[in-house]
Amino acid sequence: MADSDPANNQPAGYVPPSVWQWDKGNGGQFANINRPISGATSDKDLPVGKHPLQLYSMGTPNGIKVTILLEELLAAGYSGAEYDAWLIKIGDGDQFGSGFVSVNPNSKIPAMLDRSTDPQTRLFESGSILFYLAEKFGAFLPTEHYKRAETMNWLMWQMGSAPFVGGGFGHFYAYAPFKIEYAINRYAMETKRQLHVLDTQLGKTEFVAGDDYTIADMAIYPWYGGIVNNAYSAAEFLSAGDYANIRRWMDQLEARTGVKRGRLVNRAADGLAERHDASDFDRLLAPAAG
Amino acid sequence: MADSDPANNQPAGYVPPSVWQWDKGNGGQFANINRPISGATSDKDLPVGKHPLQLYSMGTPNGIKVTILLEELLAAGYSGAEYDAWLIKIGDGDQFGSGFVSVNPNSKIPAMLDRSTDPQTRLFESGSILFYLAEKFGAFLPTEHYKRAETMNWLMWQMGSAPFVGGGFGHFYAYAPFKIEYAINRYAMETKRQLHVLDTQLGKTEFVAGDDYTIADMAIYPWYGGIVNNAYSAAEFLSAGDYANIRRWMDQLEARTGVKRGRLVNRAADGLAERHDASDFDRLLAPAAG
Repeated sequence: MADSDPANNQPAGYVPPSVWQWDKGNGGQFANINRPISGATSDKDLPVGKHPLQLYSMGTPNGIKVTILLEELLAAGYSGAEYDAWLIKIGDGDQFGSGFVSVNPNSKIPAMLDRSTDPQTRLFESGSILFYLAEKFGAFLPTEHYKRAETMNWLMWQMGSAPFVGGGFGHFYAYAPFKIEYAINRYAMETKRQLHVLDTQLGKTEFVAGDDYTIADMAIYPWYGGIVNNAYSAAEFLSAGDYANIRRWMDQLEARTGVKRGRLVNRAADGLAERHDASDFDRLLAPAAG
Repeated sequence: MADSDPANNQPAGYVPPSVWQWDKGNGGQFANINRPISGATSDKDLPVGKHPLQLYSMGTPNGIKVTILLEELLAAGYSGAEYDAWLIKIGDGDQFGSGFVSVNPNSKIPAMLDRSTDPQTRLFESGSILFYLAEKFGAFLPTEHYKRAETMNWLMWQMGSAPFVGGGFGHFYAYAPFKIEYAINRYAMETKRQLHVLDTQLGKTEFVAGDDYTIADMAIYPWYGGIVNNAYSAAEFLSAGDYANIRRWMDQLEARTGVKRGRLVNRAADGLAERHDASDFDRLLAPAAG
């Protein structure tokens, strides 16, 4: 494919250089926070609250995976899962502060510190945080070999698949500075394929990994439920209403207190910018009479 | 961004339709195996060999993660890790056979069956297979909380990051039917960022997750070592020679028997199409005198 005619390239005549160079003008809506190098760009400590678990996050799909699990653990009576959730404004570059980078050298949300261990444990990548908390509390990750494997299969499926949905489809359909037909088609097809994989599985089992509600559901719901809930304003484009099994499963999840609460955390515009106590939800979920 | 001028789109004037439709002519080199729906397209059973572990795979970066771990386990004396490796020709659509889909409904390699458990365990997603085998044999995944968390952090980092390298950079730089400047720049920047994250970490620690050689190294090496080894003929383009800490770590890994052997499995052109016994490597690694 290296021999394709440059006249067919976009823009016509474009030829990749021998060595790629960073052009800061490229990158679309998130150009200001996308860089070809890693590391801190400012000295900034992270705040620390009263609880053992300190979450540094934002209420994106990857962020709410973790707050859904934490709220599910609390709803199930695991009081050790009390946490402080601090807002990391990724549009403002908070993830490049030195304190954040020391917890997550990859500068992405969510990141977490468990201060109850010695030494304290740093956690990054939503899938790693879900696994850590599930093991720590012995919940939402079955121990029987078959169920455990199936849960990890689907958790890893989500981790490896959703980049095509978010960084692929969402970027080119909604965020890139112009629309590129080839890229939109590529990622729309893959997003629909993934939705179909999930819908087929949920036609066979109550939850993603079988009869048990697990961290696989909590990882998958924010991304694929998000699409059905019109993320990127793309539900019509992707015919998301066709996936009836996903809809059935979403309705079950969205009726749960843990899911309701978890979806609200670290969302400054339509939820809680920060969360430090269960009572923080009271004013949102049960507003005072006027 | 939905209001960008269609004249700026690629091609100029392109406007996404209200509802996406499958055009089978779109898709580049792999158009014949990319589909917006999942499931089997043919009835085809999987072969089964003599060992407890049956691997259905191909020697791509995701495939050799698993064979490196299996060969490392065998080199370390875990004889229960003996396996049959069967070649799944993804270019021919083997992953859409009914037997393969029953093991991995996502139709991607690698997939595995553990026939030593009751019921037998199906495994899909390379990260899930690595985790399962590491837990099963108690090897290459530390049990101390801090080391275990760090290993899972980096394993999940690989799972969530490499889609930008393979499905993003590799696709647009090497495989797409024409070169799209915006997409190549987007994914070149992200690939270099990830290489820098890894290089920075390996400047601080001997292995990715610290002092111990773990499944995180085995997951990360095939992708990022692959770039340094000129995957997609892109080492010069990405200035991959700049990442000296990755090079130091790759040299350590590539000297290991487990890595040498694992890299050869399910590679019809330059290794073993199938692997059923340790002696299968003899003719490759120590050819008979003429």
